[in-house]
Parts: sequence; structure tokens; C-alpha cells
Amino acid sequence: MIQDTYGNLISSLAMVNDKRIVLLVMDGLGDCDNDGKGTALQQAKTPNMDALAGRSALGLHVPVANAVTPGSGPGHLGLFGYDPLVYQVGRGVLSALGVEFPLTPRDVAARLNFCTIDQAGKVTDRRAGRISDDVNKACLDKVRAKLQPPAGVEVFFETESEHRAVMVLRGDNLDDDIGDTDPQHTGVEPLHAARPPHGESRTALMVADIFDQVRAILSDEPKANMVLGRGFAKVPDWPKFADRWKLKPAAVAGYPMYRGVARLVGMEVVSQPTTADDVCAEAAKAMAEHTFIFAHFKYTDKTGEDGDLPAKIARIEEMDAALPTLLTARPDVLLITGDHSTPPSLKAHSWHAVPLLMAAPHLRGGDGPAFDEVACRAGQIGTIPAREIIPLALAHAEKLEKFGA
Amino acid sequence: MIQDTYGNLISSLAMVNDKRIVLLVMDGLGDCDNDGKGTALQQAKTPNMDALAGRSALGLHVPVANAVTPGSGPGHLGLFGYDPLVYQVGRGVLSALGVEFPLTPRDVAARLNFCTIDQAGKVTDRRAGRISDDVNKACLDKVRAKLQPPAGVEVFFETESEHRAVMVLRGDNLDDDIGDTDPQHTGVEPLHAARPPHGESRTALMVADIFDQVRAILSDEPKANMVLGRGFAKVPDWPKFADRWKLKPAAVAGYPMYRGVARLVGMEVVSQPTTADDVCAEAAKAMAEHTFIFAHFKYTDKTGEDGDLPAKIARIEEMDAALPTLLTARPDVLLITGDHSTPPSLKAHSWHAVPLLMAAPHLRGGDGPAFDEVACRAGQIGTIPAREIIPLALAHAEKLEKFGA
Repeated sequence: MIQDTYGNLISSLAMVNDKRIVLLVMDGLGDCDNDGKGTALQQAKTPNMDALAGRSALGLHVPVANAVTPGSGPGHLGLFGYDPLVYQVGRGVLSALGVEFPLTPRDVAARLNFCTIDQAGKVTDRRAGRISDDVNKACLDKVRAKLQPPAGVEVFFETESEHRAVMVLRGDNLDDDIGDTDPQHTGVEPLHAARPPHGESRTALMVADIFDQVRAILSDEPKANMVLGRGFAKVPDWPKFADRWKLKPAAVAGYPMYRGVARLVGMEVVSQPTTADDVCAEAAKAMAEHTFIFAHFKYTDKTGEDGDLPAKIARIEEMDAALPTLLTARPDVLLITGDHSTPPSLKAHSWHAVPLLMAAPHLRGGDGPAFDEVACRAGQIGTIPAREIIPLALAHAEKLEKFGA
Repeated sequence: MIQDTYGNLISSLAMVNDKRIVLLVMDGLGDCDNDGKGTALQQAKTPNMDALAGRSALGLHVPVANAVTPGSGPGHLGLFGYDPLVYQVGRGVLSALGVEFPLTPRDVAARLNFCTIDQAGKVTDRRAGRISDDVNKACLDKVRAKLQPPAGVEVFFETESEHRAVMVLRGDNLDDDIGDTDPQHTGVEPLHAARPPHGESRTALMVADIFDQVRAILSDEPKANMVLGRGFAKVPDWPKFADRWKLKPAAVAGYPMYRGVARLVGMEVVSQPTTADDVCAEAAKAMAEHTFIFAHFKYTDKTGEDGDLPAKIARIEEMDAALPTLLTARPDVLLITGDHSTPPSLKAHSWHAVPLLMAAPHLRGGDGPAFDEVACRAGQIGTIPAREIIPLALAHAEKLEKFGA
């Protein structure tokens, strides 16, 4: 049972007006110190954001919980006002979102890994030697051609990358009470999808049969001669963003995963730009027809994961240069933040709280002097859970009724 | 059923690596202002801690909840990452830990107070005139010599101090559904251990019989002619520290209570130093074989409880002088904090948030300029619940997996 006292309270107070809220997500924006030289935001020359910070509220947000490093799914759900610990998405659904598979309520999705098994059927490599994308695609073509799907059920396979793929079953009354078949270590056989504590659900037995067929179909393959499934999950039946916050939302996002998470909460994807200039221009354009715009910029995360600090700084500066296009469209509330931190020194997502800027009416002055982690720590917003950002924006846009008489 | 969403989440993400985390607890470290002269930490000359603060993250932690003064048990459980409101220990178990009684899962422990009863059996002094430790021991010797234990059950008595003692019943299938017999005021008889709402459990009836015998055995005593029992409890069946955080823990602690709390979560006690020099040296030594070291220094609390501010300052300075020994061992993450505050002006534990220093990689610069309550309030860690300290240390030691994809 989902417990979401805070979100439900805010939702119950939400009301419609014409004001526009823009959430500009610079993916992986936060950083930690780089050998005493400061974070990427501190080192970047960002005259537009710094000027904006001088007339905005600053703060930090905690995406999931202190010390927790969020994946992209939980990171964005928090920004959308869905507590990531309450609204947990199965791995299969996240993988399907990542390849932009259009999931329906009749679908059960799973993450697949190609693996290598020996003649006794025991797993010898859980990642099939990290086969190329091309081998992955060729193997899935073979499977598609030869698999006999269960009666009344469609089975879809999609390549993710290397050894990673997605499987989706579509049919009536399917369930996701299905065990991971990945044994998590080598030297043993894949697990059975219908083993306890998973009931012998009809769907689990179908999955077991499909994997038996896959083993036969791939038996000639030198490396990718079997698959392991995990994170079997249906699309969650969550409140839609539009209903929850009484907003008309649009997503402006160039990468599949982020469009996928936006669609998961019912947002319409109106544009797929990737460059900073295009993200700002498309977000500004979307304001004509929508009261909420989620605009996503990927490269601040990508450069962080590459461990490339100069590139991360350059990407931040690109966004800073593009920002006037968005400001000219005069959103009533503009939020600039990240979905998590991606310090180049860690080459990975991290747990560090994320800088947050809110340009809005009804502030207690402007915080300034810059938009960076240190200024944000001292800002008027304080350090808040990500799930409180949308509520704050709604408040400043005068879209929340009073609580109690 | 124990509800510990945050702790369970972090535990599910924990993974093993070789990095070393040291938690140095200066018991009762925090203070409030002393007539405008500042806290003990502010007044102490601590060049080593201040220099460390300049390259560390600072913050404050709340041991249990705002405004709540913790005992030593809850104070340390919070530091070990066990929410003290979720992981509550019976008073009997804490008393047994305090005298370092080696509790087993077959044991039920209770805190005893010697008391004085009149000829009608009514309590006239709930503390038996605060008898000396010697009288306490003599009375327990009498009881040990003459008590007929219940069939199949061993009964242990241990002196705590003055009128305080511990009783432990050991046997198969004992339970702790046993009422306190301390009526909490004088002029009435001791309560019956098996009264409602406590079922007439076999163990409660045993306790009632034991206390009847004790009254007879002690009938000649001028003051300590009866005992009152409270906090009957079995050892809680909690997740062990090593399993919960995937760490190999060692406790370095010179006082029984702290060794006891460490053992309660399954830590191995490797050394029992008391001076600052020895605590630091033994903690450094323990790093060879353990990935987590809990090092405990008692005297900052003791001097606070004595109301002796100059002595508390001197003890802090002793630890500061000893610190380089620990720093030389190069822990990957070093936490310095207290389990609660003990202001000399209160001569007691207090509710004040506790200074926290974390020397670790992946920080947002060093906070500084000193290690004291005021610098900590402005630090990058912010003010956090004690239960989030271990998770933060795990994150900075790169011992936590990502949450969600």
C-alpha cells in the first residue's frame, strides 16, 4: 500500500491557473570538490545563472535520502514530486523506458542479460563476454524468428546495449509474480522463474517456457547462448502528473530514458532536443500550450560519468549561454537543478545533495551571489527532499489553496 | 514488527570493500554556552582537530529526536545506524550490559533496586537509603547462598552500584512478559510480576516466587530488606552490525556499558583502553584487521556530569593531542562526534545536537575554521539524525550501490 501523506496533501490543495512552471534539469549537475579547485558549477563561468541567482531562491535537494545515490529513474521521480521510496519502479519497466518501448497496462517487462552457459547448463559468464550491440541484435533476431509465443501473448525483445536487452510480454491478465532467473553468480544453472516464494503463476510458467526455447534457439552461439531475466514488472498504476498537480505538462527531452520516465507519469513528450540551445528554445516554445515544462539536458551527466571535468564545465557554460532564450519567454517559476550529482572525480552518480535555483515571485529577496553548491547551501530554500520542489513551485505560482480555514 | 525503512534501504545497498571507517566517540562531547564563554569545545585548545576541520565536512547530529535527551544505549545505537526509536532495548538488558554480564538468547534480564519495606510489606524507601556498594554486595551474597532457583533455571545477581543491581534468569523458553514490580511510589506493596496485562506467564510466576524468597532471605536487613524489579527483557534479535553494513567491526572501549552496547549489535571488542592516547593507539592498531572501528573515550562525559568545565576542556585537549596517532593510520573515513551532549552547567546528559566531523574523500571542500558547535552548525553535513551518520560514511567510502537504474 502506497503511503504518501505529503504528496497527497499537496495534491489535495492543487488548483489550476495560467501560470507557467519550467523545470530545467541539468542531469547530474552536482559535484564535489576537485582537489581544492571547487565544483564544476563553481569553476564554470555562468554570468546568466549567477545574475539569476541574485534575484532567485537557492537551496539543495536530496533526491532519495541522505547518503543514497539515485539512478535516473528515482532521480527524476523525485523532481516530479513522486517520493522515490514510495513510487518504486521495477527494473524491467526502467529498462523498457530506457529503450523507449511503449509499455501498456497489459505488459510485463524484464531486463535481460545475455549469458554464457556450459554443456551442463551452468552459467560461466553472466554477461556473455560483453558481446557487441551487433551480436546482441543478431541473437534477438534469431529468437524473434523462431520463438513460439504462449497462446494469446505477444513477446517483444529489444536490444539495450552490449549484453543487455529488454523482454516484454503482452497479454490479458498477466502478472509480475515472477522470480529473477539470474543466479547472481557463476557455476550454477539459471534459476526457475516460478520457484518459491513466487507462486506458479501462469505468467511465470510462460517465462520459464520462453527461456527454455531461447536456450534451444541460441545453442549454437559461442558466447550469448542463454539469457537471464530480472526485475519482472508491470507498469505501475500511479496518479498521473496532470491530475496530481493540476498542471498541463510537456516533456522536452532528447534521450529515451528521460522521455520514458516522463511518460510513466503521463507527461506528453513534445520535443526531443539535445543541445543546450535547442532545449531552451523548445522549452520556451512549449510554454505556449502547457503550464508545466520538464526540459532535460543530458550532457552535464555524461561528461561527469566520463570523468571529464573540463567538458562538464563547458557543458554548464553552454547551458548558461542558452538560458536567455528561456528567460525571454518569462516563465512564472523557473527551477534549475539536477536529478542527482555526477562528480567527474567519481565518474558516476553520487549521493551529494543537488544545487537548486528557483526564480519566482514572492521570495525573501535574492540569494546569490552565484549558482553553485556553496551558495545553494546557504540559500533560503535550505536542504529539502526532492519531492518538495514541485510543491514549492506550485506555491510560488499561487496554485495551492490554503490548508484549513 | 520493526519499521526501519531508511536503515533497511541503506543495508540493502551496502557492499564490501577494503576501505576503513573509524568512529571516534568522545562521550557527551556537546555543550551549551557557559556564561558567554562558549562551549567546552570552543574553549579547548584543539589545534589538531581544528586543522582537520579545515579539510573535513562538519555538521550536527540529533541522537534520538529534537529535544530528547538520550541515555548511553540509545545514544550509541543511533551512532551505529540503528534508529533508537525503532531499536528499543529493555532496561534490564541495558543494566546487564552496564555490568558486562554476558547475556545469551536464553536469558531474561531485569534491573533491580534494593528497597525498604515496613512490617505491613509496604515500600517506605524505593532506594533503601542508597546503601553502599558493599552492603549491596553482601545482600546479594546472602540471596545467592539461600535462593532456591526454579527448576531448570539459573538465576544470576550482579551489583551495579549503591541500591542498583541486575538479575538474570537463564533457561529454556523463558519469556519477558513480566510486569515491573516497582510501584514507583512509597506507601504501597511491591506489584506482582504476573499481574494484568501481563499474562500469567511461567516466567512471571517464577519471578514472583523469587521475589517472595528474596523478601524472606533479606528480612533481617535494616534497609535493604526487599528488591523491586523493572525492565524485564530478553536480548533483542536485531540485525548484526556486520551483516547490516557489510563491515568487519571492532570496538575499542574501556567502560563496560559501551562494550555492552557494541556487543549488542555483534561487534567484537578488541581492546579496552581508557586514556586518549591509548584509545587512539588501539583504534589505529585495530584498523589492520577490521574495516570499522568504534573507539570510545569516556572522560568528556564524566567531567560534564561532574559539572567540571575546566576538566572537560582538559579532556578534550588530551584527545586533541592524541589524535595524530590515529590520523597517521590513515582511516579512509574518520568520524569524530559524541553520543549526546553533556553540558557541565547541567551536570547531566542533554538534548543538544552533537558536533560531528567527517574527514573523508569526495567532500565539497573543507568546512573549518574549527571543530566546535558553531562551526558545525554551518557545515556541509547540516543537522542530521544520528542514524544517517553510518550511511554517509559508507557513501564516502564508496560502500553503497546505486538505488534504482
